[in-house]
Amino acid sequence: MANQEDIFKKVIAHAKEYGYVVQSSEIYDGLSAVYDYTQNGAELKKNIREYWWKAMVQMHENIVGIDAAIFMHPTTWKASGHVDAFNDPLIDNKDSKKRYRADVLIEDHVAKIEAKIDKEVNKAAKRFGEAFDKEQFLSTNTRVVEYRKKASDILQRMGRSLEAEDLDDVKKLIEELGIVCPVSGSKNWTDVKQFNLMFGTKLGASAETATDLYLRPETAQGIFVNFLNVQKSGRLKIPFGIAQIGKAFRNEIVARQFIFRMREFEQMEMQFFIRPGSQKEWYEKWKETRMKWHLSLGMGEENYRFHDHEKLAHYADAAADIEFKFPFGFKELEGIHSRTDFDLRSHEEYSGKKLQYFDPELNESYVPYVVETSIGLDRMFLAVFSHALQEEELENGSTRTVLRIPAVLAPTKAAVLPLVKKDGLPEIAHKIIADLKWDFNVIYDEKDAVGRRYRRQDAAGTPFCITVDHQTLEDNTVTIRHRDSMEQLRVSIDSLRNHIAAEVDMSAWLKKIDS
Amino acid sequence: MANQEDIFKKVIAHAKEYGYVVQSSEIYDGLSAVYDYTQNGAELKKNIREYWWKAMVQMHENIVGIDAAIFMHPTTWKASGHVDAFNDPLIDNKDSKKRYRADVLIEDHVAKIEAKIDKEVNKAAKRFGEAFDKEQFLSTNTRVVEYRKKASDILQRMGRSLEAEDLDDVKKLIEELGIVCPVSGSKNWTDVKQFNLMFGTKLGASAETATDLYLRPETAQGIFVNFLNVQKSGRLKIPFGIAQIGKAFRNEIVARQFIFRMREFEQMEMQFFIRPGSQKEWYEKWKETRMKWHLSLGMGEENYRFHDHEKLAHYADAAADIEFKFPFGFKELEGIHSRTDFDLRSHEEYSGKKLQYFDPELNESYVPYVVETSIGLDRMFLAVFSHALQEEELENGSTRTVLRIPAVLAPTKAAVLPLVKKDGLPEIAHKIIADLKWDFNVIYDEKDAVGRRYRRQDAAGTPFCITVDHQTLEDNTVTIRHRDSMEQLRVSIDSLRNHIAAEVDMSAWLKKIDS
Repeated sequence: MANQEDIFKKVIAHAKEYGYVVQSSEIYDGLSAVYDYTQNGAELKKNIREYWWKAMVQMHENIVGIDAAIFMHPTTWKASGHVDAFNDPLIDNKDSKKRYRADVLIEDHVAKIEAKIDKEVNKAAKRFGEAFDKEQFLSTNTRVVEYRKKASDILQRMGRSLEAEDLDDVKKLIEELGIVCPVSGSKNWTDVKQFNLMFGTKLGASAETATDLYLRPETAQGIFVNFLNVQKSGRLKIPFGIAQIGKAFRNEIVARQFIFRMREFEQMEMQFFIRPGSQKEWYEKWKETRMKWHLSLGMGEENYRFHDHEKLAHYADAAADIEFKFPFGFKELEGIHSRTDFDLRSHEEYSGKKLQYFDPELNESYVPYVVETSIGLDRMFLAVFSHALQEEELENGSTRTVLRIPAVLAPTKAAVLPLVKKDGLPEIAHKIIADLKWDFNVIYDEKDAVGRRYRRQDAAGTPFCITVDHQTLEDNTVTIRHRDSMEQLRVSIDSLRNHIAAEVDMSAWLKKIDS
Repeated sequence: MANQEDIFKKVIAHAKEYGYVVQSSEIYDGLSAVYDYTQNGAELKKNIREYWWKAMVQMHENIVGIDAAIFMHPTTWKASGHVDAFNDPLIDNKDSKKRYRADVLIEDHVAKIEAKIDKEVNKAAKRFGEAFDKEQFLSTNTRVVEYRKKASDILQRMGRSLEAEDLDDVKKLIEELGIVCPVSGSKNWTDVKQFNLMFGTKLGASAETATDLYLRPETAQGIFVNFLNVQKSGRLKIPFGIAQIGKAFRNEIVARQFIFRMREFEQMEMQFFIRPGSQKEWYEKWKETRMKWHLSLGMGEENYRFHDHEKLAHYADAAADIEFKFPFGFKELEGIHSRTDFDLRSHEEYSGKKLQYFDPELNESYVPYVVETSIGLDRMFLAVFSHALQEEELENGSTRTVLRIPAVLAPTKAAVLPLVKKDGLPEIAHKIIADLKWDFNVIYDEKDAVGRRYRRQDAAGTPFCITVDHQTLEDNTVTIRHRDSMEQLRVSIDSLRNHIAAEVDMSAWLKKIDS
């Protein structure tokens, strides 16, 4: 655990130092669970967006994109279920005035029991040495069996009570377990209450006419309410998809883990509209297609896995996560959900408008079923960034920090370095940039010895360093150094564009999927 | 005027019919002054963003981009002046309970006086025929001179009172002019009050710990608060710029003119950090550079003009708009502002942090001056879209509706049309799409006669139609038709990529600026 935390701290510090991510409003001591993407982060985010949009919209004849507003008519969120059911169970400590998620308090308590089990296991492992059989120990050691039963009973009871909305019992459970407030140390708790996670605001100036609005908690509803507008103006035939990238907002009480769970975040969602009855087939198809997209980036098959939901949301008849191995373990990166016709039917009911599709092949109208793919852009950013950050021991015994961001996503494709700041080398470097800038993000770097500049660009994630030296003056060649292999090639200036393009061209990367 | 309104109505209807823009939450009867971009609109918006980003960030060695959150620490807006000074003067009618902008009520009253002047002018023009001298009439006709003096006096008094924050006098003026509520017809007015245009929300669940947040009313402050983070991690030297594209929100009381003035909108801003004293030079430079960017799109030099601000905002020492000829006349499209060191100094004061740059050439530290370029993405969209929509009379006497969006920005670059739905032509069309989709947005269209499909693609703004016919089966050639000239060429399928690229390549368009 300590090791994971250390790695994660390094990720956060590196993100700041190399211009990727900083906390929002840092000069005002920050805004909790809100982050800003600085110069390299903005480009990486932009490249991830583009990689998704190109794969989902441009490559699919039957998928189009939209860009709906964050503000939507408030009835939208009645229809979607968010007004009534998008809640966290909260409890206040009367002494510290601190507020907690009741389920998190209980889970933290269970984690302590589990730590005790681990302790017993470790003790026994030490005692028995190689002869130690962990499974057997877990199921036979009296004390451990008792702990395990206790932990399981607590979680089951909490699950049942939350499911049944029996918040009194959740409070009773907290009291029975003797859970104390981490700040005040007291057991003086209020009742548990449901708290809606949507941010509210008011549209219009007059108190009488102001409309209560929400900041959208998901982008999907912008697609559902526009379903017929898009289908009709685009003359689309089922099956077809509508994709969208945009901001969403959730007033999370416990927002943590850097950009993994933020109060303001960006989603990349696609709703695929299909014939009722075909959802199983499309659900499987999209699971596979999305996994291929992830694997195309070459971040290691072993770092991804599917997690099928056992408990389904009210709108779903099947759901799975694609989980990625973050520094803090396997966690959800993307969700694929078979949402049935829940949303469209609900909008029909609340709006009084028909949201049906006339199927010319079947010669009948119906409310389509929907399979959704939904990925958090910020999570994808964290997956790429945290996976990329590596410390390598070199042959000479020194270590180098290298940010192995897939070249197609790297913020800057090449740094152009004059070996020295004189003899006309800077001028040639700037000329190379003026030529390459039409196709790639390229930067100039002349400060410090060239070896140090290489290390800096390694740590910043730049796939290529192009060095202009005195030989350049004679034969118009430069060295091009690869970030990952550290290999250097001597090439002509004219061939630079092709060298870089060969490794960063988005279509080439995406062609791996299209098979 | 009627004509302008008609044209504007056509623009709005066309935007909906061809998948560009619809009102938000239309199925719930819409949300006022909020719009959604549907499939073609989303792509046009995306292309405008890219055209700006590439010109501003990728082409400039000394400009980088960031992507800051919409949520910022609330003190940010104290420092920027928005909490205290970002207001509209509002007045309520006690009978109708409707709220109005006091200045707009007065301006509408003045507009009525101006309409009377126009009426007199038209009458006289009719009476005098060719001998009519408008200028002379305006300055000699007793009634008209009186009207003009009255209008001018009203506007001057309003300006003075607003400037002096004398809201009592603004109310008195409304009463003296006998302005009635358009809804109730009554003169029963409340006092005039300043109303802040920022949307508020609350972060965090507990009443005691909740933070009052604002949705940012401009993106610029996200750049200012991150100025040192970006400068240091990027080792940037003055002069350098930080660019950003993102959403901003203003609770406009009178939001109108379609997407020209929305409550939720998108800005493309760049803050250029310079040495104090060099602001005049950079201000002129950026005016010129930004105008070149606009002109590169070929929408007619005569449709742009500079408008220098006479009255300057509290932070500026020079400011100009680039105005574009919208269907409702010349209006602000972009602003170039010399913002001095106002923002950085103010953030220093409120945060207690130094926001200075050490200039290695001068060997001294200072708070940089800033020149800003700020363009509304939605306004740019409206400029492109409304200018593009044209009705042409053809040689055969029929009219065609054509959306002449500059090819580089067009949402779909080509439509591939099989002449008939059989004989293997659709299969060839799909194969062409599968090949072109890596580089361009291309769509398939097989419905209706080919002439009708051409018209549909003209109206949708697609620069090329590629038609697969029976000759294609024999010699692998197709026709490629240009939207603007309607010319058709017979070309080999293999050459399609180059044909299209020659007209849509963004670098080629931008190279016009780089001279």
